[in-house]
Amino acid sequence: MADSAIRFGIIGCAEIARKVSRAINLAPNAKLAAVGSRSHEKAARFAAENNFPSDAKIYGSYEALLDDPNVDAVYVPLPTSLHVRWAVLAAQKKKHLLLEKPVALNALEFDAIVEACESNGVQFMDGTMWMHNPRTAKMKEFLSDTQRFGQLKSIQSIFTFAADPDFLKNDIRVKPDLDAHGALGDAGWYCIRSILWVADYELPKTVIALHGAILNDVGVILSCGASLHWDDGKVATFHCSFLSHLTMDTTAIGTKGTLHLHDFVIPFQEKEASFSAGTECWFDELVSGWATPPSKHIVTTDLPQEVHMVKEFASLVEAIKAKGLKPEKKWPAISRKTQLVLDAVKASIQKGFEPVEVGN
Amino acid sequence: MADSAIRFGIIGCAEIARKVSRAINLAPNAKLAAVGSRSHEKAARFAAENNFPSDAKIYGSYEALLDDPNVDAVYVPLPTSLHVRWAVLAAQKKKHLLLEKPVALNALEFDAIVEACESNGVQFMDGTMWMHNPRTAKMKEFLSDTQRFGQLKSIQSIFTFAADPDFLKNDIRVKPDLDAHGALGDAGWYCIRSILWVADYELPKTVIALHGAILNDVGVILSCGASLHWDDGKVATFHCSFLSHLTMDTTAIGTKGTLHLHDFVIPFQEKEASFSAGTECWFDELVSGWATPPSKHIVTTDLPQEVHMVKEFASLVEAIKAKGLKPEKKWPAISRKTQLVLDAVKASIQKGFEPVEVGN
Repeated sequence: MADSAIRFGIIGCAEIARKVSRAINLAPNAKLAAVGSRSHEKAARFAAENNFPSDAKIYGSYEALLDDPNVDAVYVPLPTSLHVRWAVLAAQKKKHLLLEKPVALNALEFDAIVEACESNGVQFMDGTMWMHNPRTAKMKEFLSDTQRFGQLKSIQSIFTFAADPDFLKNDIRVKPDLDAHGALGDAGWYCIRSILWVADYELPKTVIALHGAILNDVGVILSCGASLHWDDGKVATFHCSFLSHLTMDTTAIGTKGTLHLHDFVIPFQEKEASFSAGTECWFDELVSGWATPPSKHIVTTDLPQEVHMVKEFASLVEAIKAKGLKPEKKWPAISRKTQLVLDAVKASIQKGFEPVEVGN
Repeated sequence: MADSAIRFGIIGCAEIARKVSRAINLAPNAKLAAVGSRSHEKAARFAAENNFPSDAKIYGSYEALLDDPNVDAVYVPLPTSLHVRWAVLAAQKKKHLLLEKPVALNALEFDAIVEACESNGVQFMDGTMWMHNPRTAKMKEFLSDTQRFGQLKSIQSIFTFAADPDFLKNDIRVKPDLDAHGALGDAGWYCIRSILWVADYELPKTVIALHGAILNDVGVILSCGASLHWDDGKVATFHCSFLSHLTMDTTAIGTKGTLHLHDFVIPFQEKEASFSAGTECWFDELVSGWATPPSKHIVTTDLPQEVHMVKEFASLVEAIKAKGLKPEKKWPAISRKTQLVLDAVKASIQKGFEPVEVGN
């Protein structure tokens, strides 16, 4: 462990924080320095169960952790409704910010977070791990290659999982005062991000939620979908749900190529991930088979994608801390666009599936 | 070749008729007996190029072929706008009818075809070949298994291919007086069929075309999509296009399982076809990989799917001819439902992407 390793604090002992704790432990330029919970006992137990080093600090409040001068950066896995409060405070306390998705209840709230990060010179990044899998860069090479993929025409993304009855009754993701976006914020966030990623973050002009969205009895989305429309004719659709079997698809179709993957959010395996790429595929002479089928590409990695995320974030923080560089604006910009589309989908559902212009 | 082999005539020398000629040659219970074209020379050339037996009859008109008492069944690959005329006449001439898809310009026309088939006691089947691939039955076993797939929740289907400039200018599929449904009739037909097949042919209640349909300058659809909605909350989407790279996906998601395939219309290989099936897939302990990923299933076949189609059709004809059985009503019923959904999608596009109730 280098002495320059970025010291992470975690506020909130959510399930996902277990995975990120391990990632911080595994990242060569990061270390676990503190954990804070509303209960000191809970924080202590979390630290013990998640291999925190013996000198890590245990705090019985989020504020106390944010006041620790030996914490460089915080990872915030709190419910969405609490993001704006704690993310802004963290930034004000000069803590670099790795924030779980969905980043905010709406773009306006997110802008307050970004404003706080900018005025305090801290790095922002959201916790969308798959972005950092080496596979993602490899797929982007394919999508960017006009010879192999051509011009982008359409994108389809699906993220569904079958939540159990306990989840559907008690999880924060079905509570309007906690993760108010429900399946749209949890699973749909990834779909929207994957669509924007394929489209090089060009925002769609219009979003139209698909009829048939399912909400629980307190108005939280359990299942929904939307189509996204760009001025140049590109079209995307996505579907997200807590009510269907685990499915994680992204499909991108260009004029010359097609990309497929079925594990875009969490790769089937930690150490390798694959995708299918087809280029100018066509049939055999009698159209009874494919003369040129798509091919499978495997990308190996020594580190799980969440470790790549932590490593990338920590290296940005390191550059700010050690070299006085400015925060990288790419990451909050990507988060903001994802939030804008999410907001538009939600507005379209609320307006009875009418077309909604995406904000800017 | 058994003496009881069903004797096929082909009216029209379309590209697709080459593949079906080979299939008739390969089917153990069928044989090529005649080909008719508006030009005797063209018919003769087609027969010579497609391994017709030396005693096969060559006709310079469709009528002449339909008058041949030694033809049991006709395969009709004519443009859609000609279907009702020639299909009805074929039925009146007591020829069993294997009709290319899309079956008609609309359900009303199709009903005239079915009426003619029924009143003349002839079998009807459309040319949707993938239905007959042994893989299809194997996938249905998975979809029907409540333990492995659960209750159907959503379906996505895509069929696109990048037509070349000559196709986009001259092919019958871009001509309003020939194949007036364009990409919807050609590629979308398969998407709709795959959705209905997954849904056990339960018709959706409502269809809504997605915004962004692309039509050529004479109003023929080059690219479009739609969402389909059932009363029980099931939802499906499809996308079809002449303007994007070759892609053939069907995805079906249930409460317990997911089916994926990427070559649903034409399998990558003639002699084997695969699909991916996931059942109660879930993550490993830290959600950094899948403990139970989907598995790949390979179904081998001695005969290409189009031969299975001809064989199935011929065996139905044989049962009528030799044993006096009634025509199998399942096949026209499936065709009709596909046409009803297609009609609703087209109506929705024409109404500016408004919801349209599916007819019955």
